[in-house]
Amino acid sequence: DLSFDPKEHQHLRYNPLRDSWVLVSAHRMKRPWAGQVEKPPEEHIPRYDPRNPLCPGNTRASGEVNPSYDSTFVFENDFPALQPDAPDPGSDQHPLFQSKAARGVCKVMCFHPWSDVTLPLMKKEEIIKVIDKWAEILEELGVTYPWVQIFENKGAMMGCSNPHPHCQVWASSFLPNEPAVSDRCQRAYYQKNGEPLLVQYAKQEAEKKERVVVENSDWLVVVPYWAMWPYQTLLLPRRHILRINELTGEERDSLAAIMKQLLTKYDNLFEVSFPYSMGWHGAPTGPHLKEDNSHWQLHAHYYPPLLRSATVKKFMVGYEMLAQEQRDLTPEQAAEKLRNLPEEHYKTREN
Amino acid sequence: DLSFDPKEHQHLRYNPLRDSWVLVSAHRMKRPWAGQVEKPPEEHIPRYDPRNPLCPGNTRASGEVNPSYDSTFVFENDFPALQPDAPDPGSDQHPLFQSKAARGVCKVMCFHPWSDVTLPLMKKEEIIKVIDKWAEILEELGVTYPWVQIFENKGAMMGCSNPHPHCQVWASSFLPNEPAVSDRCQRAYYQKNGEPLLVQYAKQEAEKKERVVVENSDWLVVVPYWAMWPYQTLLLPRRHILRINELTGEERDSLAAIMKQLLTKYDNLFEVSFPYSMGWHGAPTGPHLKEDNSHWQLHAHYYPPLLRSATVKKFMVGYEMLAQEQRDLTPEQAAEKLRNLPEEHYKTREN
Ligand SMILES: O=P(O)(O)O[C@H]1O[C@H](CO)[C@@H](O)[C@H](O)[C@H]1O
Ligand SMILES: O=P(O)(O)O[C@H]1O[C@H](CO)[C@@H](O)[C@H](O)[C@H]1O
Repeated sequence: DLSFDPKEHQHLRYNPLRDSWVLVSAHRMKRPWAGQVEKPPEEHIPRYDPRNPLCPGNTRASGEVNPSYDSTFVFENDFPALQPDAPDPGSDQHPLFQSKAARGVCKVMCFHPWSDVTLPLMKKEEIIKVIDKWAEILEELGVTYPWVQIFENKGAMMGCSNPHPHCQVWASSFLPNEPAVSDRCQRAYYQKNGEPLLVQYAKQEAEKKERVVVENSDWLVVVPYWAMWPYQTLLLPRRHILRINELTGEERDSLAAIMKQLLTKYDNLFEVSFPYSMGWHGAPTGPHLKEDNSHWQLHAHYYPPLLRSATVKKFMVGYEMLAQEQRDLTPEQAAEKLRNLPEEHYKTREN
Repeated sequence: DLSFDPKEHQHLRYNPLRDSWVLVSAHRMKRPWAGQVEKPPEEHIPRYDPRNPLCPGNTRASGEVNPSYDSTFVFENDFPALQPDAPDPGSDQHPLFQSKAARGVCKVMCFHPWSDVTLPLMKKEEIIKVIDKWAEILEELGVTYPWVQIFENKGAMMGCSNPHPHCQVWASSFLPNEPAVSDRCQRAYYQKNGEPLLVQYAKQEAEKKERVVVENSDWLVVVPYWAMWPYQTLLLPRRHILRINELTGEERDSLAAIMKQLLTKYDNLFEVSFPYSMGWHGAPTGPHLKEDNSHWQLHAHYYPPLLRSATVKKFMVGYEMLAQEQRDLTPEQAAEKLRNLPEEHYKTREN
């Protein structure tokens, strides 16, 4: 009988946050690639572009003029997918034709006045300002809305239509699918094991080390055991924290530091400004603020698409859409690669 | 109070096959697009390319030589994600680090000896050959494997690395996530309503008409009420059929006809060879052949990414990955657009 080697033998891994499985077929990295190659991201972005609606002092589609901001800047999305006042589609429906009301707000937050920087190239103090603003927005919109999704689409490959460093916040009158499943999974785990799922998970990974990318006294970044994207990571606090606005000053400082470390490694992997979608998940808000949400642990997901190089991504297509996610290298291989990359950004490195 | 208009007012719709919701924000189509534009698909594909491993008579990576086939041609994938003999990772695991054995086979099926045709440009008789082969493969691999996923990734945008018309079949020792959820949903519906979910759904849609794209006496193509991709469709038989190998000769004939109609409309939408991932879902096989699977209804899903033009797709990124799928036009708008397109392919049309 052959002995099992995860790098050579395909197997399934369980994702306890989504109650689903991923197929790990690491031997597949050996196949040649003759498919689509992405355009390398535009490298010469001007610091200020008079036509870019996100730059300080410019006029947006709505006719509003941006202030001459010098740190972060938050405004309402000019093309919001969620508006505060949509009417209700009404009830009394056939079970196969069910609809529900959706209300909310969409905001955009610029990270910095300059278009030619990204988070890893910003100073730690500037990243702390971003974290403070995230906390403030969550607190503000969380009064009303059950879910406040903070997310960043970085890079044209990830549907980002503007190179200026920014993220979005979509707050909704409903708990969306992904957090609803995550809530259910974390609750069931807590009821069974008496400790939050992700608190236990962080402890285990901190001991095992093989999937750790970077860590400090407050935070841990791992390629999760169940990662589906090639270089997907999970950013976890060591302490039990429900929501981002509960972070202490010290924890915001160490979060800025570890984000800078992680994102520098990401950029260094293929020496390109690394595309990804990332977002924060924490305990639900609005009416849920009054409930016991001890089963929740704050965390951020990073979902980067690149697989082989700056221009070849992993396609989550046919089999993945119709059957199950599949990955081409093990999470341990991905973690090791990221862990061993230099801490200094390739753009600022001296030769 | 405003009265509800699905084209103007965002709302949620329920997907009864996945027990999840999609956010419909049709007013969002009004926003301008300044983001990534895809390369238009390569237009001059040679009928025969001596370096293409899928062409008749050529040598593949494995060293095997393709026969001079003149219809369909099936072979084992040279870089399979699933192999028949992987060892078991073993049990006795922590609940947060669970793995399972995965075994299977991966096949590739060429639709036609020529590289410069696609299904809509093939003759009906040639498409019937493809359907016959699908049925044969399902029957053959279904003896052993619980799930046989037939799928086609079409176009470089959908990760397809070879322009030669082909699909894939991945058969597995496990029931993957998507069919597992679909099985659970269809079973619950059947137990509650005494009729298969998709049989009832097809009847309703055939009456309502507003989401129908094309239909004939045996088949119906709709943009489902819960579609997440802009021009997603669902291909449904009118009769209750568990698996593709149960189709009669007449039903294979009418299936070839409706596929040709649908795919011609797809190509005509933006006058481009329309990229998509598609696949068949039917009742599970292997050990499930002995069970009662009356809750299942055979169907095919088409997931095409294009949104605005031949080069601008819908990005399922930040919000969609972290919270919930969101669409920018209503399924009724998409169905109407497809329905009204000409039945003749833009490449063969006379001017
Ligand atoms: O096997 P192919 O066509 O080379 O690969 C394509 O389809 C597979 C199955 O959906 C995916 O896992 C790959 O990411 C994609 O590039
Ligand atoms: O709002 P943006 O950045 O223009 O749009 C981008 O992010 C949204 C939220 O993930 C997606 O729905 C869009 O498909 C994507 O292009």
